Amino acid sequence: MSADSGQIKAWAESHVDADPQAILEIAVQNFPKLALSFSGAEDVVLVDMLSKIDPNFSVFCLDTGRLAPQTYAFLERVREHYHVELDILFPDNAAVEQLVKTKGLFSFYQDGHQECCAIRKVEPLRRKLQQLDAWITGQRQDQSANTRAALPVVQEDGLFSTASQRLIKFNPLSHWTSAQVWQYIRDNDVPYNELHEQGFISIGCEPCTRAVLPNQAEREGRWWWEEAAHKECGLHAHHGIKPR
Amino acid sequence: MSADSGQIKAWAESHVDADPQAILEIAVQNFPKLALSFSGAEDVVLVDMLSKIDPNFSVFCLDTGRLAPQTYAFLERVREHYHVELDILFPDNAAVEQLVKTKGLFSFYQDGHQECCAIRKVEPLRRKLQQLDAWITGQRQDQSANTRAALPVVQEDGLFSTASQRLIKFNPLSHWTSAQVWQYIRDNDVPYNELHEQGFISIGCEPCTRAVLPNQAEREGRWWWEEAAHKECGLHAHHGIKPR
Amino acid sequence: MSADSGQIKAWAESHVDADPQAILEIAVQNFPKLALSFSGAEDVVLVDMLSKIDPNFSVFCLDTGRLAPQTYAFLERVREHYHVELDILFPDNAAVEQLVKTKGLFSFYQDGHQECCAIRKVEPLRRKLQQLDAWITGQRQDQSANTRAALPVVQEDGLFSTASQRLIKFNPLSHWTSAQVWQYIRDNDVPYNELHEQGFISIGCEPCTRAVLPNQAEREGRWWWEEAAHKECGLHAHHGIKPR
Amino acid sequence: MSADSGQIKAWAESHVDADPQAILEIAVQNFPKLALSFSGAEDVVLVDMLSKIDPNFSVFCLDTGRLAPQTYAFLERVREHYHVELDILFPDNAAVEQLVKTKGLFSFYQDGHQECCAIRKVEPLRRKLQQLDAWITGQRQDQSANTRAALPVVQEDGLFSTASQRLIKFNPLSHWTSAQVWQYIRDNDVPYNELHEQGFISIGCEPCTRAVLPNQAEREGRWWWEEAAHKECGLHAHHGIKPR
Repeated sequence: MSADSGQIKAWAESHVDADPQAILEIAVQNFPKLALSFSGAEDVVLVDMLSKIDPNFSVFCLDTGRLAPQTYAFLERVREHYHVELDILFPDNAAVEQLVKTKGLFSFYQDGHQECCAIRKVEPLRRKLQQLDAWITGQRQDQSANTRAALPVVQEDGLFSTASQRLIKFNPLSHWTSAQVWQYIRDNDVPYNELHEQGFISIGCEPCTRAVLPNQAEREGRWWWEEAAHKECGLHAHHGIKPR
Repeated sequence: MSADSGQIKAWAESHVDADPQAILEIAVQNFPKLALSFSGAEDVVLVDMLSKIDPNFSVFCLDTGRLAPQTYAFLERVREHYHVELDILFPDNAAVEQLVKTKGLFSFYQDGHQECCAIRKVEPLRRKLQQLDAWITGQRQDQSANTRAALPVVQEDGLFSTASQRLIKFNPLSHWTSAQVWQYIRDNDVPYNELHEQGFISIGCEPCTRAVLPNQAEREGRWWWEEAAHKECGLHAHHGIKPR
Repeated sequence: MSADSGQIKAWAESHVDADPQAILEIAVQNFPKLALSFSGAEDVVLVDMLSKIDPNFSVFCLDTGRLAPQTYAFLERVREHYHVELDILFPDNAAVEQLVKTKGLFSFYQDGHQECCAIRKVEPLRRKLQQLDAWITGQRQDQSANTRAALPVVQEDGLFSTASQRLIKFNPLSHWTSAQVWQYIRDNDVPYNELHEQGFISIGCEPCTRAVLPNQAEREGRWWWEEAAHKECGLHAHHGIKPR
Repeated sequence: MSADSGQIKAWAESHVDADPQAILEIAVQNFPKLALSFSGAEDVVLVDMLSKIDPNFSVFCLDTGRLAPQTYAFLERVREHYHVELDILFPDNAAVEQLVKTKGLFSFYQDGHQECCAIRKVEPLRRKLQQLDAWITGQRQDQSANTRAALPVVQEDGLFSTASQRLIKFNPLSHWTSAQVWQYIRDNDVPYNELHEQGFISIGCEPCTRAVLPNQAEREGRWWWEEAAHKECGLHAHHGIKPR
């Protein structure tokens, strides 16, 4: 039902190069209150893998109210393709109204994305995570040398665990490259967000995501008006590692 | 501060062909708790007119969480251009989550748009209208022969008035044609939604709005999968006229 | 097998309000060397009408080398839908090369469109018309109050007739409105250029055509950087009327 | 003025890892009748480099009549940015007319691209190359393992040399990677085709080019309906190597 710190570390070490499916197996077998966090991007490979391991798997998405039309269409396609109920979380209206009334709809370009993410992503996520023992993310080390280089395949969630609730986070793609993810998508005919056909690699909220040039790092397509080194949205800050 | 039914009818009759500005003057002078409902489309002419009549005017918008990126950008442009605080209303998260969890993100294509509009538009609108004595809309008779042909320039709001609150609705563009609206936009350099440069006339939620062909009626660009005769979103149903 | 001036005028007068099909009948019955000039826009209705009157009808198009991708795709769709060979005319390479080498690819924005049209449209058209007794165009009076108001349904072609060749021009849609054309397209399931779904009414070369706003005159979408009164491309200059 | 086979091989061997600029220096110093073939894609780095070495450099482009609007706009931007006269070559009208009259505008999807390329690219190129001693291309080995793996930085042009004219081809980017090209573009603020912001890596004719997915090989964006191993357009066939 759970696992102590030693067990988590043991799994992380023994599975450092394991197939993502083997890591998902551990999650499924040990954590009944488990759900996959699906962003609407290429982490759809985890939906595909998990659906083959556990037909009753749970998936949730964060609908910030500002996703791209193509992303909404893609979420629906995933829902239909995998016959899965998507638990789509929505932000609190009072918090959104307060922010946009005083600062407008694009305050993140001036004030940074953290304030908006806190309302539209982190708060709804926190609500959801309170119901879980463990969650699964699509994070990968190769997405950002600055913020994700040391990401283990499984870890205690230092950000969302509380005094009364210990939360485990699985990152089964941690050690995969973007090339491996896309090979899997092609080999398995996995549906993908059509924005990926328009130069988008990383995909988040519409105003905070853009296509990148050939050979440009994928995180340059996110929050590009901010300094490169701090591009996390609050969901994955620190990764259990102390802030610098 | 208010007006009885006779006064409302008298205004409607005496201003049946009046300039929209004259109608706005009545609204401003008689209803301190007054706000303009701005949709992000060509009703921006009312923002322009009202800003010239009352520098302290109130405007609200319904952000359903599914507007087009171009519409969000336009709302922000209006906010900056007119130095006005937009009161942007957002739907209740529990209601949205419940709908999309069970029916997905595009249930309106199967079940009709009323259910989704009720959650994303009508409920937030109702919340707002409870604070007002009168509101202003951009509705016009020429938008729909079926549902808007008899629309007066001012009326008691039969839909949102309650036993404890009598609400007046002003429709200062009721008798204007689309051509007059666009002439005003050009003559006064009013900013407009860039979707209007891509074949869009009427503009609502992104999945429920499309461009129309040359010479196609503008309401054919809204909820086109439904019968033509019933295309109102719940904000303006019946117009005080009994339902059929 | 031809017709004298009196006959042309008689036809024009007797058919001033006639159905376009009746006018096409005259053309087909009296002029064996006849061809339709198809622009890739809503004059596709003439392709549809003519195909029903004369299964061996001839159609030509002017491929300037600068049409929009959507227009090339549409020409092909028309070719397949009507099983008709499109005679697609292409400009002389030496003339194009000389123009763009000295003035670049967008000289029309500075020097006006006539110079470029002369090379890419008029010269190939002249080559084609030398093989004909009569041609058919999709011009309409309602397209431009300035240049097309007096357009008859049939006329001697004052521009392309020569001392040795008398050329007749039929304009079967001369008296139709844009609304009638689009009603025909919908009633007859005629394929149309997908640019018409993106706000385009008139369609010519890609750099010289743009979408128009709601209620904007269709010719404002063509050569918009030039004075409104002179927007003809050289194919239809003067219409037999003396230049002002 | 020229160079024998031994000299060409010696240059190729001594410059196998050289900076592209050093290779361009050899071309400029030894071949007065020299021109750069610019495709409108990321080979714009050669325009930048050459402009800094020889202010009187010659550039030509192949305008097939089917380039993307974004590419025409980019060619013009390059013309203005570098104050250089672009020699834009256009195909023979009779050949184009004959092809499209019998086979339509998209015959390459059925019959392969070679027939169309022969008319729209190879023939105009051949005309141009007859005036030259040497030409410069942007080909790189990393573009295609199948057809470009052994490409030297300079070579005798086995395809376009004739009995009476020996032609040398320089490929100064032969050994550069896509990443190096894009680094140069960013470091030197070189203008680039805006299609590169929409997922396009390789750019050719509009109907024969598409965006690729993340981690997809760039040549998958060209003539994707044909077998992967033979994707050359006739300009660079064989590279002096015997056909298989």
